[in-house]
Parts: sequence; C-alpha cells; structure tokens
Amino acid sequence: MSESALDGLVDALRRLPGVGLKSAQRMAFHLLQHDRDGAMRLSLALSGAVTRMRHCRRCHTFTEAEICSTCLDTERDPRLLCVVETPADQAALERSGSFKGLYFVLMGRLSPLDGVGTGDIGAAALLERACDGVVSEVILATSFTAEGEVTAHALSEALKARGLKVTRLARGVPVGSELEYVDLGTIAHALVDRR
Amino acid sequence: MSESALDGLVDALRRLPGVGLKSAQRMAFHLLQHDRDGAMRLSLALSGAVTRMRHCRRCHTFTEAEICSTCLDTERDPRLLCVVETPADQAALERSGSFKGLYFVLMGRLSPLDGVGTGDIGAAALLERACDGVVSEVILATSFTAEGEVTAHALSEALKARGLKVTRLARGVPVGSELEYVDLGTIAHALVDRR
Repeated sequence: MSESALDGLVDALRRLPGVGLKSAQRMAFHLLQHDRDGAMRLSLALSGAVTRMRHCRRCHTFTEAEICSTCLDTERDPRLLCVVETPADQAALERSGSFKGLYFVLMGRLSPLDGVGTGDIGAAALLERACDGVVSEVILATSFTAEGEVTAHALSEALKARGLKVTRLARGVPVGSELEYVDLGTIAHALVDRR
Repeated sequence: MSESALDGLVDALRRLPGVGLKSAQRMAFHLLQHDRDGAMRLSLALSGAVTRMRHCRRCHTFTEAEICSTCLDTERDPRLLCVVETPADQAALERSGSFKGLYFVLMGRLSPLDGVGTGDIGAAALLERACDGVVSEVILATSFTAEGEVTAHALSEALKARGLKVTRLARGVPVGSELEYVDLGTIAHALVDRR
C-alpha cells in the first residue's frame, strides 16, 4: 500500500466519522477492486453535494434552494416552530406524521466540552426566526441526552425572555416497551408527568 | 433529508463496506456541516485513485505504474515468491521486515459461497508468474481462515503440479501470548509442527 493515490484515498476516507485506518484500507480496497463505479459515483456525489447544498435561509437545514420545500409548504401551520438538532431528527419527526408546523434545525447542540457554544448552533438565527410575529409556540425537540437537555434549557431561557411560549417533547415510557425493562429515570419522569 | 444532492450522497456512502443508512447519514451530515474540505478532498482522492490506480503487471497489486516499485526492486530475491490475499496483507509482511523476496497479490481469496472461484483471484496469472524460470519457492501466505486455507490448498496443488516448491507460513502460538489463552486448534498445530 505504498502508492500515493491509494494512500491519499485511505487518508481521505479516514476523515469520515467512525472510520479508522483498517476500515479505510478495507473501503479503499473494496472500491478499487470491486466497485470502481461506486467510487466514481461517490466522488461525484461528494462534489455535487458540497457545491449545491447550502442552508435554508429560514430553518437552516440543508437545501439546494434559497428556502427549503418544508418552509415553503403553505399547508403547514406557521405558528408552531419545532427545534431539532439535525436533519435526521427532523426526518424522524416527519416520519411520525404527527407534526404539521415548521422547523428550525440547529445543525448541532451545545457541547461545552467540545467547544460548541450558542454561536455555533445558530441560536441567534433561531431567536430571529422565532420572533417573526407569527410563531406562537416553540417546541424544543433536542435529544434527551445531557447535551440535548443543556441545549433545550439555554434556548428555552432565551425564547421565554422574548415572551414566546416554549414547550418540550414529553418524556415517558416508549411505546411498545414493558415497564420491567424501562430505565429508572424514564419511569420517574413518566410518573411526574402522568396524565 | 429530502433534497436530492444529499440523498445521492447518502446512497453513495451506503455502498461503502460496513456502512449502513444511519452511518451514511451521519457521514453526510458531518461532511456537509463540519468538513466540506474533507468532502472535496475525498471526492478528488476517489476520482484520482480510480483514474490512476491499476494492477501491477507482475504481482497484480495496485500501482500507478506499469510495474510496481516492489517488483522493480533489484535488492529483492526473485527466487522467492510470497502469495498474499490483499495489499494490506503484503504491507503487514513488509512491516515484519523478515521477507526479502517478491510478492503476488491475489486481490481476494476463494469463496465458493460468494461465487469467487479460481478465475476471480488471478490463479492463472499466478501460475504464469511463478513459472518464469526464476522463482524456485512459492510461499503461500493466505489467511488462516477456512477460505484462506481452501485458497492455499487449491493454489498449492496447481503449483506443485508444475514442479514448484510450495511452502506455507508456519502455524503456531503467536509471539507474546500465554498458552492458557491460546485456542485449541493453534496449540494442536504448534505441537505437531514443534521444532
């Protein structure tokens, strides 16, 4: 493996999240030996995405247009704004089919240990977006992890200070789970928030 | 995640070995949000490798030249030919610094269940290479897995039929290991091959 184009490919693959040296070597070998079409397709997909994908001016998600199709959808209720961490989280909510408002995608979450502050997750853009005079309720749908909770807390404070109604996704027992196997924290929250 | 350039990128990333939908989405998000330089670098590395990498005419490994630098190395002993499955295996042998002969890289191994036969691993090219009149010993260094053993056996038969001396890497207890933790098959082989 001492040839430069191959080394360059292995190095570039190693920059992908979750890919170490061995995986990168295996990927490079697979692409060159068994899937050169796939390699060229990936090459074009990468350059195409980098060139064409930008952030929606309203909700900050990835889009090829100035404003994404979700934000332009007039069927949606513009009074509800749901804040998520990533486009994948937004997709998960959309799959549930139970939300018909608009979104704001943070493209990250607060993570002081990694040096990710409010400036990095577009908090200012969210405040501006939420204070458009139409939005009446902001639903914080960040993850229920330590970092997601910190993010939700910080955003909640800032949004409430501007007089907006702020809600959070309900915590509780997941659908389809047996109580015996649910963790204590979840059970405690489900008890407190019982209805 | 409903925009086409992003979907195309996720689809292309999913073709990498060991990458599923979630990993591909995470990679695409990471590249577009945090590492667009890395994405462009990977795009160029892929197209560069596909365009420039071909197989060495003598040993079949990946190279940018007609014949790879290892095969052109006149310091090496051309009477010893070591057969390995992949360039990564060759690199592992090179790192050990204990082999100064030449290589033949199969770029795979026999795997009847996956439809990989002798034609797919360049067995004919190996036979031609080994019968150049200079090679006096072929060392089979395929993996000590079921498929690697089958490959070694098949190649061994064909090479011996052509009057070549064929050897196999020694099986035995790995350096640095305590006997207590070595598997039974390895201990059995180490006993039989004791010296």
